Amino acid sequence: MFYKLLAALDRKVKFPEAQAHCDIPCGIYDPIVAQINALTVVRMLDLMADLDATTGDKLAYHNSMSRYIAVKEEHAEKAKHEIRVIFGDYIKAPHVEKYPELPTLVHKIMMAGSKVRQSTDRAAAVEFVELINKFAQIFWETKGISTKRAKAPYKPELELVYPNL
Amino acid sequence: MFYKLLAALDRKVKFPEAQAHCDIPCGIYDPIVAQINALTVVRMLDLMADLDATTGDKLAYHNSMSRYIAVKEEHAEKAKHEIRVIFGDYIKAPHVEKYPELPTLVHKIMMAGSKVRQSTDRAAAVEFVELINKFAQIFWETKGISTKRAKAPYKPELELVYPNL
Amino acid sequence: MFYKLLAALDRKVKFPEAQAHCDIPCGIYDPIVAQINALTVVRMLDLMADLDATTGDKLAYHNSMSRYIAVKEEHAEKAKHEIRVIFGDYIKAPHVEKYPELPTLVHKIMMAGSKVRQSTDRAAAVEFVELINKFAQIFWETKGISTKRAKAPYKPELELVYPNL
Amino acid sequence: MFYKLLAALDRKVKFPEAQAHCDIPCGIYDPIVAQINALTVVRMLDLMADLDATTGDKLAYHNSMSRYIAVKEEHAEKAKHEIRVIFGDYIKAPHVEKYPELPTLVHKIMMAGSKVRQSTDRAAAVEFVELINKFAQIFWETKGISTKRAKAPYKPELELVYPNL
Amino acid sequence: MFYKLLAALDRKVKFPEAQAHCDIPCGIYDPIVAQINALTVVRMLDLMADLDATTGDKLAYHNSMSRYIAVKEEHAEKAKHEIRVIFGDYIKAPHVEKYPELPTLVHKIMMAGSKVRQSTDRAAAVEFVELINKFAQIFWETKGISTKRAKAPYKPELELVYPNL
Amino acid sequence: MFYKLLAALDRKVKFPEAQAHCDIPCGIYDPIVAQINALTVVRMLDLMADLDATTGDKLAYHNSMSRYIAVKEEHAEKAKHEIRVIFGDYIKAPHVEKYPELPTLVHKIMMAGSKVRQSTDRAAAVEFVELINKFAQIFWETKGISTKRAKAPYKPELELVYPNL
Repeated sequence: MFYKLLAALDRKVKFPEAQAHCDIPCGIYDPIVAQINALTVVRMLDLMADLDATTGDKLAYHNSMSRYIAVKEEHAEKAKHEIRVIFGDYIKAPHVEKYPELPTLVHKIMMAGSKVRQSTDRAAAVEFVELINKFAQIFWETKGISTKRAKAPYKPELELVYPNL
Repeated sequence: MFYKLLAALDRKVKFPEAQAHCDIPCGIYDPIVAQINALTVVRMLDLMADLDATTGDKLAYHNSMSRYIAVKEEHAEKAKHEIRVIFGDYIKAPHVEKYPELPTLVHKIMMAGSKVRQSTDRAAAVEFVELINKFAQIFWETKGISTKRAKAPYKPELELVYPNL
Repeated sequence: MFYKLLAALDRKVKFPEAQAHCDIPCGIYDPIVAQINALTVVRMLDLMADLDATTGDKLAYHNSMSRYIAVKEEHAEKAKHEIRVIFGDYIKAPHVEKYPELPTLVHKIMMAGSKVRQSTDRAAAVEFVELINKFAQIFWETKGISTKRAKAPYKPELELVYPNL
Repeated sequence: MFYKLLAALDRKVKFPEAQAHCDIPCGIYDPIVAQINALTVVRMLDLMADLDATTGDKLAYHNSMSRYIAVKEEHAEKAKHEIRVIFGDYIKAPHVEKYPELPTLVHKIMMAGSKVRQSTDRAAAVEFVELINKFAQIFWETKGISTKRAKAPYKPELELVYPNL
Repeated sequence: MFYKLLAALDRKVKFPEAQAHCDIPCGIYDPIVAQINALTVVRMLDLMADLDATTGDKLAYHNSMSRYIAVKEEHAEKAKHEIRVIFGDYIKAPHVEKYPELPTLVHKIMMAGSKVRQSTDRAAAVEFVELINKFAQIFWETKGISTKRAKAPYKPELELVYPNL
Repeated sequence: MFYKLLAALDRKVKFPEAQAHCDIPCGIYDPIVAQINALTVVRMLDLMADLDATTGDKLAYHNSMSRYIAVKEEHAEKAKHEIRVIFGDYIKAPHVEKYPELPTLVHKIMMAGSKVRQSTDRAAAVEFVELINKFAQIFWETKGISTKRAKAPYKPELELVYPNL
């Protein structure tokens, strides 16, 4: 309700059509891709911890561990890349005026994305998801679309921010 | 309602834990990535048609046209890749037994993905989106999650299949 | 002999010019690339087993093991990708009518490709090679070119299906 | 001189060892890669304008134009990626405290990088180079290394910011 | 016959086990991948010339032309990459002693690969294929495997050098 | 001084405008990218050795070790790729006439690049840097630009060859 009101208001007060000037003008941006990638980082850490707790074949251990780390690495990178694309191609000066925390939030996402690559700290990865959730919420707000939080339909079943469609 | 019932039933009748054997076991699969990519193909065709109808600077025309075609190409490829990953890593023999149309549907998606790269036919691109929607619907069914159709919150605002979360 | 006959027959009975509609029309497809990639997976498993049996410098062990696993991963992925391209761009409905096992065979290849990434089971990798050999044989048949089996000229020297040129 | 003083001062006043926490701790960051990539964007625009002014073979025209646009696209992307990596992996909160303009500068670089992909406007590309020069200057300052401006030793011979080594 | 003799001789005279020191020791190298890629360059030029000779829809023209050029670009690059890998990972000093023309041949291949990207000259692309054929012939000789020339089983049906297996 | 003289001489004696025929004609080549990448290989080996000497959490050990090895791998590859591009696109026959050691030097760089991927030998990585320095020196000479050696402004602070700008 509130969001639709906000959106209506935005349109009324001539919030400039910033989205008309994105990379390919009027591209399709959706933070869900970054959110799924960040969630995958948490999942990999869970699998790494599980694997580490088992005893078993050394070769199988190395094979799985190497793959989990590589997948963690790749998905953290993709999450950062997706956010950078939306930040650089969709977010314009008027958005930043309205949400002045955006550049710092993006910096925090980038630093968090680096941290989850370097470390095996689950809390850092959950924080990474939450920072991107925060970005997603602002993103949908700029489009006048309200959001909800819901458990992702796959492990580790953390809550993600989804648009109400 | 029906889907939850189905899911409950599935669990009862020991639908094998197929998802326990995916690429990275218990990975995170979500057809939305393929759906967004397919939608982007339609969007690019619309932008190409718009551009073609304008008169203007030849250099700017080539710059934009080349970029639209490249983006179309890349996103059609990504959509195909995402479907292949879910098909190869998540879909197992028991799924195919239950949904025997799956291998043929995947083949159709692959052919449609090739066609939208070759041609500038909008109807073919819409068909590509619909085939992937169909795949998405089956995918969520295998997880016991019901779906809805809703307009995507970005142009060209075609309907996508979304899970009810 | 038989293949040339078959090919002649095909042409006679107006086997539709399916290959006229491939991704870039009349592209160059050759399953040998997938076959070499699958063979590399077996080779990496052999090197991993050899390395695991040696005692030596821990750093060198990790360096080599990580690299073998990464190369295995990459080549399994490439093999799957190559098959998907031929399946999506070259194989058309008339081929599937004639070889109805094709979509299921491709599914098996995709699943086998996932398995060899997850596990260190040599038999699974040999099976991966054989499934792709089977695909190669059908592929060359569709072109009216007979095939032979011959040892690959590099370790692990498994037999591959080659066209008679 | 001034920079060395600054650096000495920084160390004295316990400027936190921020660089000890970069992506791979103590990685090697150098904005020259982004600078070269941005310069290439300007070069491509010059080549595109030259080509457009010639009359000649249509096929050769398309071949060259397509390639220039693709190279422009790729290098703009690489420049943005490099800046994002330094921003996310090297720049830490204490840097931002000292140079509060950094997050906004990075946002401007990202927007400029999008603009040079979309348009064929040479002034925008020169601006892109200058924004990255500005980033380079701050970067070297954080390391206590003074800089100079010098013409790049390749066309279009714009000035780049170089560290005094 | 001659090649097998040569190979036998080589082994006898203790031709050093150069291949024991390749990138992943004892990797699987096969110039056929480079050869197929080079052939694709010629094919694209043929398709570009055909397209250019037709009259038709401008949008379809741009779509196809852009894609042919991009495929030409990508395959020329892949061919160069493959040759570089074999040259850097498999070819060792003793090979160069025996075939002193190798470094220059590789340089010629690299230059030819650049030329076919820049131009639309079919003769240059055929020359690119022939230079890689020459490399393939030497490669198989170093392994003691004789070769033959045969028409490739796909358009443009140029002759490639194949090992006798 | 000497270099400028040489350059002047070159121009006088009609040193052919070889750089007019590079991949994208008159592209921007700079060996610094390869040099930074090679330096990174040494850095990773240092980090690997440090990590190996510590005792600590097994999971963190694997996470860091895997990442260092992957970064080493990637940067060795990039260094080789950059040299290959300059060698194939910029270096022409007249350069080789003047610097006949070039093709062999490139071969040595490629072999060294393979070795540093396979092994954990720091001396081999330092040698890799030096071979690329040698290439850089010749490169700048061909452009009539003198060079100096200076410590790189990041660990491991080896000397690199820089142009005097």
